[in-house]
Amino acid sequence: MADDPYGAELQPFAGITSFMRCPVTRDLAGVDVAVVGVPYDSGTSYRSGARFGPRKIREASLMLWGYNNPLAVKPLDALKVIDYGDVDVIPPSIVDTYQNVESEVGAILHAGATVISLGGDHSISLPLLRAHARKFGPLSVVHFDSHPDTWDTEFGGRPYSHGTPFRRALEEKLINPAGYIQVGLRGPTSGARDWQEARDLGVRVITLDEAAALGVPAVIAAIHETVKGPTYVSLDTQRAPPTRRSRPGPARLRSAD
Amino acid sequence: MADDPYGAELQPFAGITSFMRCPVTRDLAGVDVAVVGVPYDSGTSYRSGARFGPRKIREASLMLWGYNNPLAVKPLDALKVIDYGDVDVIPPSIVDTYQNVESEVGAILHAGATVISLGGDHSISLPLLRAHARKFGPLSVVHFDSHPDTWDTEFGGRPYSHGTPFRRALEEKLINPAGYIQVGLRGPTSGARDWQEARDLGVRVITLDEAAALGVPAVIAAIHETVKGPTYVSLDTQRAPPTRRSRPGPARLRSAD
Amino acid sequence: MADDPYGAELQPFAGITSFMRCPVTRDLAGVDVAVVGVPYDSGTSYRSGARFGPRKIREASLMLWGYNNPLAVKPLDALKVIDYGDVDVIPPSIVDTYQNVESEVGAILHAGATVISLGGDHSISLPLLRAHARKFGPLSVVHFDSHPDTWDTEFGGRPYSHGTPFRRALEEKLINPAGYIQVGLRGPTSGARDWQEARDLGVRVITLDEAAALGVPAVIAAIHETVKGPTYVSLDTQRAPPTRRSRPGPARLRSAD
Amino acid sequence: MADDPYGAELQPFAGITSFMRCPVTRDLAGVDVAVVGVPYDSGTSYRSGARFGPRKIREASLMLWGYNNPLAVKPLDALKVIDYGDVDVIPPSIVDTYQNVESEVGAILHAGATVISLGGDHSISLPLLRAHARKFGPLSVVHFDSHPDTWDTEFGGRPYSHGTPFRRALEEKLINPAGYIQVGLRGPTSGARDWQEARDLGVRVITLDEAAALGVPAVIAAIHETVKGPTYVSLDTQRAPPTRRSRPGPARLRSAD
Amino acid sequence: MADDPYGAELQPFAGITSFMRCPVTRDLAGVDVAVVGVPYDSGTSYRSGARFGPRKIREASLMLWGYNNPLAVKPLDALKVIDYGDVDVIPPSIVDTYQNVESEVGAILHAGATVISLGGDHSISLPLLRAHARKFGPLSVVHFDSHPDTWDTEFGGRPYSHGTPFRRALEEKLINPAGYIQVGLRGPTSGARDWQEARDLGVRVITLDEAAALGVPAVIAAIHETVKGPTYVSLDTQRAPPTRRSRPGPARLRSAD
Amino acid sequence: MADDPYGAELQPFAGITSFMRCPVTRDLAGVDVAVVGVPYDSGTSYRSGARFGPRKIREASLMLWGYNNPLAVKPLDALKVIDYGDVDVIPPSIVDTYQNVESEVGAILHAGATVISLGGDHSISLPLLRAHARKFGPLSVVHFDSHPDTWDTEFGGRPYSHGTPFRRALEEKLINPAGYIQVGLRGPTSGARDWQEARDLGVRVITLDEAAALGVPAVIAAIHETVKGPTYVSLDTQRAPPTRRSRPGPARLRSAD
Repeated sequence: MADDPYGAELQPFAGITSFMRCPVTRDLAGVDVAVVGVPYDSGTSYRSGARFGPRKIREASLMLWGYNNPLAVKPLDALKVIDYGDVDVIPPSIVDTYQNVESEVGAILHAGATVISLGGDHSISLPLLRAHARKFGPLSVVHFDSHPDTWDTEFGGRPYSHGTPFRRALEEKLINPAGYIQVGLRGPTSGARDWQEARDLGVRVITLDEAAALGVPAVIAAIHETVKGPTYVSLDTQRAPPTRRSRPGPARLRSAD
Repeated sequence: MADDPYGAELQPFAGITSFMRCPVTRDLAGVDVAVVGVPYDSGTSYRSGARFGPRKIREASLMLWGYNNPLAVKPLDALKVIDYGDVDVIPPSIVDTYQNVESEVGAILHAGATVISLGGDHSISLPLLRAHARKFGPLSVVHFDSHPDTWDTEFGGRPYSHGTPFRRALEEKLINPAGYIQVGLRGPTSGARDWQEARDLGVRVITLDEAAALGVPAVIAAIHETVKGPTYVSLDTQRAPPTRRSRPGPARLRSAD
Repeated sequence: MADDPYGAELQPFAGITSFMRCPVTRDLAGVDVAVVGVPYDSGTSYRSGARFGPRKIREASLMLWGYNNPLAVKPLDALKVIDYGDVDVIPPSIVDTYQNVESEVGAILHAGATVISLGGDHSISLPLLRAHARKFGPLSVVHFDSHPDTWDTEFGGRPYSHGTPFRRALEEKLINPAGYIQVGLRGPTSGARDWQEARDLGVRVITLDEAAALGVPAVIAAIHETVKGPTYVSLDTQRAPPTRRSRPGPARLRSAD
Repeated sequence: MADDPYGAELQPFAGITSFMRCPVTRDLAGVDVAVVGVPYDSGTSYRSGARFGPRKIREASLMLWGYNNPLAVKPLDALKVIDYGDVDVIPPSIVDTYQNVESEVGAILHAGATVISLGGDHSISLPLLRAHARKFGPLSVVHFDSHPDTWDTEFGGRPYSHGTPFRRALEEKLINPAGYIQVGLRGPTSGARDWQEARDLGVRVITLDEAAALGVPAVIAAIHETVKGPTYVSLDTQRAPPTRRSRPGPARLRSAD
Repeated sequence: MADDPYGAELQPFAGITSFMRCPVTRDLAGVDVAVVGVPYDSGTSYRSGARFGPRKIREASLMLWGYNNPLAVKPLDALKVIDYGDVDVIPPSIVDTYQNVESEVGAILHAGATVISLGGDHSISLPLLRAHARKFGPLSVVHFDSHPDTWDTEFGGRPYSHGTPFRRALEEKLINPAGYIQVGLRGPTSGARDWQEARDLGVRVITLDEAAALGVPAVIAAIHETVKGPTYVSLDTQRAPPTRRSRPGPARLRSAD
Repeated sequence: MADDPYGAELQPFAGITSFMRCPVTRDLAGVDVAVVGVPYDSGTSYRSGARFGPRKIREASLMLWGYNNPLAVKPLDALKVIDYGDVDVIPPSIVDTYQNVESEVGAILHAGATVISLGGDHSISLPLLRAHARKFGPLSVVHFDSHPDTWDTEFGGRPYSHGTPFRRALEEKLINPAGYIQVGLRGPTSGARDWQEARDLGVRVITLDEAAALGVPAVIAAIHETVKGPTYVSLDTQRAPPTRRSRPGPARLRSAD
């Protein structure tokens, strides 16, 4: 009989669904990485439902098995990773949600763990950046997205939404603009200056067309050239590249180097 | 060639989708009934997505044709009905959304039209009741639902959500408790006193089990006994009765008698 | 900040999904009820996929909240309930799966807990009955189903499948035929004698047509008349009655009275 | 090894999908019943797709097994039933489709078989009635539907559609009005006289509300009172009654008595 | 309060769904571009449902926002664009549908507007080409498709279907063959000569394999070399290129240069 | 009237669904190629449901029409192809299923036909290889997959599963390792040695990253260099390349050269 209800030895269809079958706990002693869900979707201007993102990413993560062939690493052997569960979000209030996210994630960082957060719509980046900058100071940022998310306001002049978090973070000095790179901008926008505004704020922008022309190695080199010190990685994508199937919902990874 | 882009003579799969193919306008002169969408879903504690409710109810309404056989009425012949479009809701803020709903619906009522609103989650009942009570005074209410929606707070002590609007409305004297009847309560709740609390607030409650035992005519009689004066009807249901297929999303109808 | 990663205070869309947010553990000390998944679906003759039943029942259970209004009980206040996780099933071998189910569930029963198992196709009833009968002796059984599941063989003369478990259990004296009642038989079968064969084996059968004619109270009375001593309840249904929406997948409950 | 590629001994997920695993053939010698698909959906005014109805009804029929418990009959033992395949329909032309249906079904009837046809939208009833009346003379009709389908015209004055076939059939004397009963009319219609028009044409109409008040035995008695001689049965339903799950698409059965 | 029921300032989930929130009107005075739906799907030989294409394209168009970054244009600022609604199509008759399409679109062109039509299956290209050629004379055509759609007949020798419109248009001298280019042919066909037949009719064909070998700039150059004078663009695709997500259904754009 | 119930002249939505409308028969006289389904899915460690693979591949095959443009071949003109139906699989027992597959496919091969089998999960490769090797001796194998499927055991030390068939086949000398090439390995695995183990067993491995770097012609050349004599081709893919849309489920083709 198995000793572990998370089913480390079970098949992907079986067992309690924690992220990659890591133990579910709020005990942070000795933890290297804490995975935490932020199931908030009231910041989006289109389809809601990303509140189920953390649950579905956990489910999909059971197919990751553990060994990453292209990178030849088995991270769970080298790091103590836990599933912390989800932050308590408040759907009708983005301000209250921001307080909870900053506070709960800040406590995890304070305990010394690196945080991987699972969204949720992209508005949650602001309290995550607040929590990280409070500990690490102004951050470098690697931001994969189709939009710059640096609008000044959205929803009739309001400051917080999925279109504004990185403008707010730059204003609040959470991000060091010289260390901020965006990759993948593409498609239609509401105005002619969306991309230029990001550049005016100091962001290094590589659009999807530019990335396709440069090639993956040159994009990786550009990222390495740009970032310095503690770096926050934000991934806002609906589909992963074809060889690595994943699920909707932004994921954020901070790694101090 | 047709003169009307809404396609009054087109088939249900064709044409711009306004409610029952009524004209889309914000000109309220001479209007009897204005249909207005309230596409807000940040008040729900489970599956979001009801922000698409008004759009889908409009789509489904094209199958209503016009003549209601059981009631032997053809309302669009007797009443001037328009589709007013949607209220501008603010997903990240229930407070701002409430202000917009109350203000925009209040203006329609002020112009003399009766309002049929299409939700949206049930949290929008509060600003709708505010707008109606401001014009008509305390309202009688017929409320079809599986839950009483009279919690004191939800989401960690917050006052506004899809579980609290009718408690707030009673506190704000928008509803006359003696004219308030709830029909259809059923299923599990989080506490033993959910139904009793509604009764303690003065609401006449007919649970689904009681309704099944009474029969439809007796329930209708109970409703007529209860309501007096201007009456607000609220329907929060995921499925219509089997003989009348409809779509998810609460619909609200006020009719002054 | 919440202390509990299962999110007892979180909303239904948030947190690790254990059954009704009960703690996930394999420590059975002081446990009244252990919920255990049996994600096996190789016994079915039609659509596979019930291996995801336990995961989806856990997800749906988050909407049960806790207080059952029709019964006026709040079981989690009166009983210590845990989520034990899933049995390790072996999809390519029903025989190996039966051994694992009997052994793992037997150990839980041995520790003194009552078991609620979540399927899985109905073939898993046989090892569940074996585990229970080994502890309690021949069982009374209340069996809700559209088929009697008392075929002699299926799949070309083989003894184990979702159509045979109760025949095997009667042959193995796990069930006391005088205490066995089936409710709900309906629809087409492959042969004229399917229902009569169950009766010939000593089962009291109430078909769905008979149940509709008798009414619910008379059916409940018949169940109480029939069962005696330790009783195993098996529910094989694709849809719950209309007023209590649930999800596919059999659930089994043993309660000693 | 099995000798039969239709898989009479296989499970419902396996084998070539003919109706109830009957042999697929166009040899009508000695055949009692021929099942024939009419995959036409250009007559509908709403959702197209019923062209896949015959394929999906065949798939669902594999779950019928063979023995009907409520009626205590095993029709495939008593009758030689074949699956004739589908009529060659012409989606862009209802007139050409009508010719093919009448001609192909007429040939089957001429060979002496009873026809069960699988739709397709309800416009196909007209050529089916033509083929049957050509052989049997004016027919009695039992018609289960939510609409009378006796409009004079549809689609801007055109004679053929899913709303007109029974008006045309009455005009063409294919149906004996004194032997025609409609059961189940319900819901909204485009005009106040839809139901009355059917009655004016001589049809006996039992609406769904009337059927619910009368009860099933009285409805069956009414049907028996009405029909005389060769009778055509037409079923236009999206959902079967709850105890007998079936799939969308009208099915038609003629049985001479 | 917003003045515009189409919700130019609303979010993509809100408001009446006109194409890119353009005003819905049949007043063509001063109109540069009229968007018109042709919800016809009885010309297809496989899955029907494209009758819902115009509705779904309108819904998806709300995500186009307005500014096209790769082309650096904001067309709605430079052009007066309206949503004309849908042509009245006749599902059971392609001939009647062709007359309505040619007549209604002809009237729009006569009023001086450029037409963007939203399908619907590809059979509608013929009446669209007729209407355009009647005004502009023989047209150049840019045709993106996986099939040449130049069959002589389909559905048992019939002239009109989704496989034949461009053969008919060439025969009727609506298209100047020297100005006709097809891009994207691929996959299986029913005969060995499908592609060669298009070439024999004078069409310049670039298959998908050839396009992949040439690269996008060379394909664009080939298109510019081929077309001369008034040009009709037809897009028959199930999926847009990966960087511009769109929805099923052909779209047609005529631009006079 | 058509003579053929499989509908060779019908549209893809009509008729009995045999593979590419080939005749359904178990008479193998003069047959070049027999298509046979193996609807078994109890060997998979994740989502079950591939038991419906043969049915859905048959349905999709109706869109293949017959002429392959890239290869300029029309195989049904040159070869006598039949649809043999499905093997009788035993979901609860992989051992019994293996016996049936080997026996039934062996009989087809014995009659002189080439077999194309439609899965089903990849565990069925072992009995297929057994049947082929019994007739042809050790086989060359071309194996397209994301995993090597050469695990030693799965499901707690058991020998048969979808992860082990090619290890077993090598051990049983069904495959000549020098003639075995795998193409497409990618993504995460459970251990660091999965790919190396395949190489240690003598398999020539071209990972997806290597294939992308080499290009398609070089991969084809590598395949031709590797295989010698009777060759078994196995395709385990969830999505076909973009220009040839197909459905899930492995397909296997043996061609003797």
